[in-house]
Amino acid sequence: MPAANTNVTPSSTAIPAPGTGPSPQLFFETANAFQRSQALKAAVELELFTVIGEGKQSSEEIAAGCNASARGTRILCDFLVINGLLRKQANRYSLTRDSAVFLNKKSPAYLGSALRFLLTPEKVEGYNILVEAVRKGGTAIEHHAMLPENPIWVEFAQSMAPLMTMPAEMLATMLKAEQGKPWKVLSLAVGHGLYETSLARHNSNAEIWAVDWPNVLELARTNAVNAGIG
Amino acid sequence: MPAANTNVTPSSTAIPAPGTGPSPQLFFETANAFQRSQALKAAVELELFTVIGEGKQSSEEIAAGCNASARGTRILCDFLVINGLLRKQANRYSLTRDSAVFLNKKSPAYLGSALRFLLTPEKVEGYNILVEAVRKGGTAIEHHAMLPENPIWVEFAQSMAPLMTMPAEMLATMLKAEQGKPWKVLSLAVGHGLYETSLARHNSNAEIWAVDWPNVLELARTNAVNAGIG
Repeated sequence: MPAANTNVTPSSTAIPAPGTGPSPQLFFETANAFQRSQALKAAVELELFTVIGEGKQSSEEIAAGCNASARGTRILCDFLVINGLLRKQANRYSLTRDSAVFLNKKSPAYLGSALRFLLTPEKVEGYNILVEAVRKGGTAIEHHAMLPENPIWVEFAQSMAPLMTMPAEMLATMLKAEQGKPWKVLSLAVGHGLYETSLARHNSNAEIWAVDWPNVLELARTNAVNAGIG
Repeated sequence: MPAANTNVTPSSTAIPAPGTGPSPQLFFETANAFQRSQALKAAVELELFTVIGEGKQSSEEIAAGCNASARGTRILCDFLVINGLLRKQANRYSLTRDSAVFLNKKSPAYLGSALRFLLTPEKVEGYNILVEAVRKGGTAIEHHAMLPENPIWVEFAQSMAPLMTMPAEMLATMLKAEQGKPWKVLSLAVGHGLYETSLARHNSNAEIWAVDWPNVLELARTNAVNAGIG
């Protein structure tokens, strides 16, 4: 590659002072944001938060608990620290308050199962063809979520249910279910049925009618039976 | 679903004061972070930032410029507003300073092409099997990026080059290339060759040796010729 000489305008070499010039930071953060979703999903699948919740602290201990390599575990943990989902001090990892409540499988408010719906392949697929959806003004997925009996809603009802346990109890309290009035409750798109089960548990005089696609209704029925209703 | 009565502990219906209790916010933000990457990619592919840079402001005008639907365009634009990549006032969209510099195709610092590398399917695929990689302690992709002549590095060299134009000019200035000393420059993993081209343009006495995989070197050679070197 022999050299040649050309003119360069001074402005093309001007260096902006830090913090004053335009920044590509948001661009790179946004472009790489998908890595955050995938790291969280991998950590949940490896039960990494649960293992740390059991008291494992070093990457070696955590790796042993997750049946993973120490190197891979350390890199994943460090990424989760950067993104606020773990803490690290002197090479020992610990859960944040929110991770302890929502990501440890042994917590009653465990949300990890929600990823099965939030990151279900059918849902993620739609974002791979987002350009088509924007051109069309609606989903570009052929077997989209609004088709009757799409199994995605069974997955939804199963995996999002834990999130609704507390609100369902709160609803029963707010509606004074314990007064035992002879309610007639109509629930449209009942889903997992946790709200209705909670009302029924607190008010034995409630008569509840649940409507949903047959495959989802089957799950709501199972959940109700498991909760001692029905 | 007839009703039954069971006991519920009072603690399960305790409502934490806002901002004081644990929050699932980071969990949901992280789970859905992949949507941000995909929205940016779709907007760049639709040249949405470039169209807004041309002065189109309403979702209808922008949609016409992007050959897309007004509804899809409005939803995408609103999502980009929420994520700091656009501004919105009285239903009129405008570029942020950073979007104007880095996402408008007519800007000399346009970075949109970098998404072809940052979100290249081979790269994204690795994150779909992240659990395997953590178990193994290294990439779980068979045809991974470190294999000789993997075409991903041609894509890298092409799509990341615009980002390096300014640093390359800065390097030539810092090294006082204009003094024309008889340099011998050895560049290992030359990639797009922008640094070397810049040195050569500023110092006609520089002799530059570039090393890379043959397929990447071909691109560096083309870039140098296009810049009037060689």
